[in-house]
Amino acid sequence: MTDGRALTPIDFRIEPSRYRHWKLSIDGRVAILAMDVKEDGGLRPGYELKLNSYDLGVDIELYDALQRLRFGHPEVGAVILTSGKERIFCAGANIRMLGQSSHGFKVNFCKFTNETRNAIEEAAAESRQVWICAINGPCAGGGYELALACERIIMADDGNTSVALPETPLLAVLPGTGGLTRLVDKRHVRRDRADVFCTLEEGIKGKRALDWGLVDELVPRSRLEETARQRAAEVAARTDRPAAGRGIALRPLDRTIDGDRIAYAHVACAIDRARGVAEITVGGPSVPPPADAAGIHGLGDPFWPLALARQLDDLILHLRTNEEQIGLWVFKTAGSADLVEAYDRLLADQQGDWLAREIRLFLKRTLKRIDVSARSVFALIEPGSCFAGTLLELALAADRSYMLAGAREGDSRPPTTLRLTEMNFGAYPMANGLTRLSSRFLGEPGRVDDLKGRIGQDLDAAAAAEAGLVTVTPDDIDWDDEVRLALEERAAFSPDALTGMEASLRFAGPETLETKIFGRLSAWQNWIFQRPNAVGAKGGLSVYGTGQRSEFDRRRV
Amino acid sequence: MTDGRALTPIDFRIEPSRYRHWKLSIDGRVAILAMDVKEDGGLRPGYELKLNSYDLGVDIELYDALQRLRFGHPEVGAVILTSGKERIFCAGANIRMLGQSSHGFKVNFCKFTNETRNAIEEAAAESRQVWICAINGPCAGGGYELALACERIIMADDGNTSVALPETPLLAVLPGTGGLTRLVDKRHVRRDRADVFCTLEEGIKGKRALDWGLVDELVPRSRLEETARQRAAEVAARTDRPAAGRGIALRPLDRTIDGDRIAYAHVACAIDRARGVAEITVGGPSVPPPADAAGIHGLGDPFWPLALARQLDDLILHLRTNEEQIGLWVFKTAGSADLVEAYDRLLADQQGDWLAREIRLFLKRTLKRIDVSARSVFALIEPGSCFAGTLLELALAADRSYMLAGAREGDSRPPTTLRLTEMNFGAYPMANGLTRLSSRFLGEPGRVDDLKGRIGQDLDAAAAAEAGLVTVTPDDIDWDDEVRLALEERAAFSPDALTGMEASLRFAGPETLETKIFGRLSAWQNWIFQRPNAVGAKGGLSVYGTGQRSEFDRRRV
Repeated sequence: MTDGRALTPIDFRIEPSRYRHWKLSIDGRVAILAMDVKEDGGLRPGYELKLNSYDLGVDIELYDALQRLRFGHPEVGAVILTSGKERIFCAGANIRMLGQSSHGFKVNFCKFTNETRNAIEEAAAESRQVWICAINGPCAGGGYELALACERIIMADDGNTSVALPETPLLAVLPGTGGLTRLVDKRHVRRDRADVFCTLEEGIKGKRALDWGLVDELVPRSRLEETARQRAAEVAARTDRPAAGRGIALRPLDRTIDGDRIAYAHVACAIDRARGVAEITVGGPSVPPPADAAGIHGLGDPFWPLALARQLDDLILHLRTNEEQIGLWVFKTAGSADLVEAYDRLLADQQGDWLAREIRLFLKRTLKRIDVSARSVFALIEPGSCFAGTLLELALAADRSYMLAGAREGDSRPPTTLRLTEMNFGAYPMANGLTRLSSRFLGEPGRVDDLKGRIGQDLDAAAAAEAGLVTVTPDDIDWDDEVRLALEERAAFSPDALTGMEASLRFAGPETLETKIFGRLSAWQNWIFQRPNAVGAKGGLSVYGTGQRSEFDRRRV
Repeated sequence: MTDGRALTPIDFRIEPSRYRHWKLSIDGRVAILAMDVKEDGGLRPGYELKLNSYDLGVDIELYDALQRLRFGHPEVGAVILTSGKERIFCAGANIRMLGQSSHGFKVNFCKFTNETRNAIEEAAAESRQVWICAINGPCAGGGYELALACERIIMADDGNTSVALPETPLLAVLPGTGGLTRLVDKRHVRRDRADVFCTLEEGIKGKRALDWGLVDELVPRSRLEETARQRAAEVAARTDRPAAGRGIALRPLDRTIDGDRIAYAHVACAIDRARGVAEITVGGPSVPPPADAAGIHGLGDPFWPLALARQLDDLILHLRTNEEQIGLWVFKTAGSADLVEAYDRLLADQQGDWLAREIRLFLKRTLKRIDVSARSVFALIEPGSCFAGTLLELALAADRSYMLAGAREGDSRPPTTLRLTEMNFGAYPMANGLTRLSSRFLGEPGRVDDLKGRIGQDLDAAAAAEAGLVTVTPDDIDWDDEVRLALEERAAFSPDALTGMEASLRFAGPETLETKIFGRLSAWQNWIFQRPNAVGAKGGLSVYGTGQRSEFDRRRV
């Protein structure tokens, strides 16, 4: 994502006072988030963000706004997404930005935007903060995909406002931010109508958009805002979020980058460039948790699970975006399993509290980012670690895990153990809707039930291997060689083959909107993003806006 | 698939007397199909089929054998798949063949081999002809993927025999013929073990293969054949196929290719190279069906539904393989809806008859080939057509359909109509397990129930549009322009974007092994097949066997 050029790393940390592209206002239980993209506010030089088109910088702000709405505004039950401009809703991802981006940048950009749109849907389903889209002008491509992520789409019925997915006819690529999937799988638009719609550059407006199910409601332009506010108020009235709750401030995230070391309060990362490995150590809590929900609210963002989620989330985004050559992430943990379990118990006991719920959902989303990252993931489980409950999910998210059997010579610490907590059995479903344990034991669901009976037990390497929780359990004599060889071997494989292999093996079992988007739609888009018909000298994405016509190799593959 | 070179077209028509690579023997209720690939029997020059590796020619014979086992041998309830060579089971797809093939050829080759493996599974599930694999030597890559398609895998426990998916470490591509998917989704191999297995060039043998679920049974080499025969006899004893049934001969298929016209008895195809369109006209039956199952058996392969399936199947394979520049297939029908309905009624009434069942399943597989073809598909519904029941599926498989409203000036024939039959409601499920009608009305399942009440009715354009069965219904004044513009427009779009778009819009709803293989796994493989890390000068596929080492771009995408 450094785009082949020596550019400064992209920073995902932002706060509302520095927003350039979004205006957020709160009116009681309803928030209004207006997209008002600053034309000269692009993250990189070389393009102008005309017509409310977006680049990664715009989407980083959107992601931040989404997080702050959830944590900072317990009272908000509905969010109206609209445009702050008079004559345009959103023209989608900026084409010149895409045209000048490397393959890796495009793919990673789409992944992040997809995750944010999925989080919009999760906000509605699980945080009871429902997004409603008010379309007040042409809404095309990624603009309409943003609308599709909302629970309700209200469109102005005027001569100017339309919805469109013009990527195929205009750019020779796909609406790759979930558009095709949500069209037929979420909105259940009839497939032949979807086919027609996706080939219409100019899109569809008015009654036909309503009849085809592309929008939910059509109102005169003059009544759009009023209608959106009314629908939002209706939805917000049904939320379980506390009207009188006090929000949590998400203060600027402390991070130091010192050479190849990245450090946060609870997360440290050491990059080994020669081997292409990032060793990520997650620290457990250092103090016991507060006694109850009031204690969590009182602590705010230093509360360990929330601080951890923020730090790990930022690190994943940083590594994905700014360290594309580092192909293997190795997770370690350090700390006390007892303390991790105590925090897990608090989160489980307080699941009815809005803030405890938000923290769990944030951890869930962060763990899901690992699942869809195009990086190999290993876990190393050694003395001093605390792979318990929430942190055990890191090992379960790994492509493989190594656990040291027995003690290490000269190390007085006891042999390492794993520990299951209640949080391993439902708190953190993957994109396929299953827990990592259920995905792991798809062929033997009884194993998951058996493991429930072992919550809180310390499982040593033999027990963990027998339970199927770890891959390899070398002893002290073999450990160093076996781990070293595994890392070196991984580094020698084709990064692309690994990406395809991991994407296939990680998601057995049921498919959902999300797995379809990350598995099927993204894979096709990635393929198209490589094809000369899109990115060659005469490809659709390359010639857009130049006045030239595309020239396609007509062979169907 | 002409591979960029001026090669003779590939012909999918074959018969056992011309097999070069397979030996079929029948012993009562058990068949043995032995792979014995002729090294110098490749379809193209430039590679030798060593170690029982295969190319498209080998797979065309396998497909033919599968069909003939089903139609010619009602008595066979189990098929043992094994190797006819002493020291090797199968080394998978021939790498040099892949290395010298165009992108399009590779993708199309994988599609056809996938369809054949899916048909092996369908034979077990629906024809009650169960395939069992007896692995008698190293079984790697596509060889193991073939084993994975069987219901039971028995492996010799000797020092020589192993199973492996070495594509990622060895070739920088994926096991793309269903291997990754079947590993975790059919056999439910634990994901971390699958990860280890897929990175082991040398594969896994003996007890570990059994413990990990890679095979079902391990026996000494000396007892392999006996054990396979015993298991096959047990399975065959439970089949519902008639022990005393008489098979149907599938005689050589008559086809004429005259310039741009391809003709069979019931199917005609006219290719318009300038527009990139193949107009495919399917003829309805010309005589009424026989009265009962005995009549079907008496007729044999000229029986219209069977003859149609064979002809359409061959045409689809021919167009896919030999006409890659023809991006749009336009289906028409000609004939009597009454007669089509009469045949449909016979097939529905005789569903307990093994041959009627085979014919329905053949039609099902052929229609499924259309769904996964990387071609745009339109249907044109005009006076004289017979889009009824089984033939209506062609219109429902189309990306969009145009139906002429009212009569055509100067045409004395009545306005065209559509007709539903019982066969539209379950006989021909798509790869997602749903009928085309259910997939179409995913958001309104009640519509399918309503349509059941209209079986046998003639639906004119207005009624068909209202019922949601057709996309556009121009009248005589608009028809010519509207259809011409639609064809021209389609021809102008990027073939790649269309492929990705169609693959996404055609399969809403549930996912199955098959949709995962065609949607997710194939899309990733296609992407990897384009990447320099696989096919560039220093890519894994390119340098294989040259003694050179791959050099990879280490950036993860």
